[in-house]
Amino acid sequence: MDERMAKQLAFALELDKEKNVFRQTHLSGQGRNENDAEHAWHMAIMAYLLKEYANEDVDIAKVMIMCLIHDIVEIDAGDTYAYDPEGLATQKAREEAAKERIFSMLPEDQKEEFTALFDEFEAYETAESKFAHAMDNFQPLILNNSNGGGDWKEHGCDAKSVYGRQSKTKLGSEKLYEITDKIIRENINKGSLKPGD
Amino acid sequence: MDERMAKQLAFALELDKEKNVFRQTHLSGQGRNENDAEHAWHMAIMAYLLKEYANEDVDIAKVMIMCLIHDIVEIDAGDTYAYDPEGLATQKAREEAAKERIFSMLPEDQKEEFTALFDEFEAYETAESKFAHAMDNFQPLILNNSNGGGDWKEHGCDAKSVYGRQSKTKLGSEKLYEITDKIIRENINKGSLKPGD
Repeated sequence: MDERMAKQLAFALELDKEKNVFRQTHLSGQGRNENDAEHAWHMAIMAYLLKEYANEDVDIAKVMIMCLIHDIVEIDAGDTYAYDPEGLATQKAREEAAKERIFSMLPEDQKEEFTALFDEFEAYETAESKFAHAMDNFQPLILNNSNGGGDWKEHGCDAKSVYGRQSKTKLGSEKLYEITDKIIRENINKGSLKPGD
Repeated sequence: MDERMAKQLAFALELDKEKNVFRQTHLSGQGRNENDAEHAWHMAIMAYLLKEYANEDVDIAKVMIMCLIHDIVEIDAGDTYAYDPEGLATQKAREEAAKERIFSMLPEDQKEEFTALFDEFEAYETAESKFAHAMDNFQPLILNNSNGGGDWKEHGCDAKSVYGRQSKTKLGSEKLYEITDKIIRENINKGSLKPGD
């Protein structure tokens, strides 16, 4: 085996560790916590399924690969809950170090390619990034909603912080944001989410 | 919400169940059994990562979505181990019924689209299908190999049946089949896999 393929296969095996990074979201049916690999898989199919609702035309292959790899850094940095201010304060530095270590396993050209895709997702500027982020918000939202908003209840989340994150869905999809807003309001009304300010 | 979106979101939530379908393959590091969603996620990234080794040019978006959805029918039909003759005998009928039920949750045009992608994968004829199948073989192979061939040992597999399945990898990628053959030989040599005929 040549060095290039050896590096690619070492990276492929390293990916396996993402299946052991567990999130705060629970599977439907009041199931166990979801892991990052499952979340990314679900997001990528939803991106394909719901692409007609993207605000702009998107390169769906790029959206899918962004969805699939967007949490790779959590192999080292762990999952940071979207509504955890302390974790969020150190998240950037932890994830930068992880990105460098993990993508450096690849041949140089693919290190550049994967890093660029990861950075494009993070930058929230392109149509593909905005729609992939909409999936990153919307996928856990439908699971949490199917469980009566249990993840919000568990963390005592308020509507202000949830809107702070979820309102960015509209950058990727106005249509999916309409549903998001409806789901948030319903969860406030039934007491799963504190109204906040 | 209109009927079209309601159907799409019901399908999106149904997908979640695939995370509870466990396979015979174990995660690296002698970990737990892998589930279908994790397997599909891993395959789709590997397809993108290793696309330079496809025998023919492939539409990578199509390969990725095929990888992501190829086990959806197992939500109803369960996982059938690749080296289980009894399970394999009834697999087709179980999966056909599941395919009809699950894809019928979608709007008609998307039912047709997803069914066509699923059938194209199963038919093993197009370049995309052949390369996606190569990932379906190669992804569990590298996990199993990282665990010293433990999945083969557990099931007492012999080289003939393993070659029967894995040799089809060469239809999608001669290069990855060379590695596959090397891994199989190493596992025979160290006694993880019975030599067979």
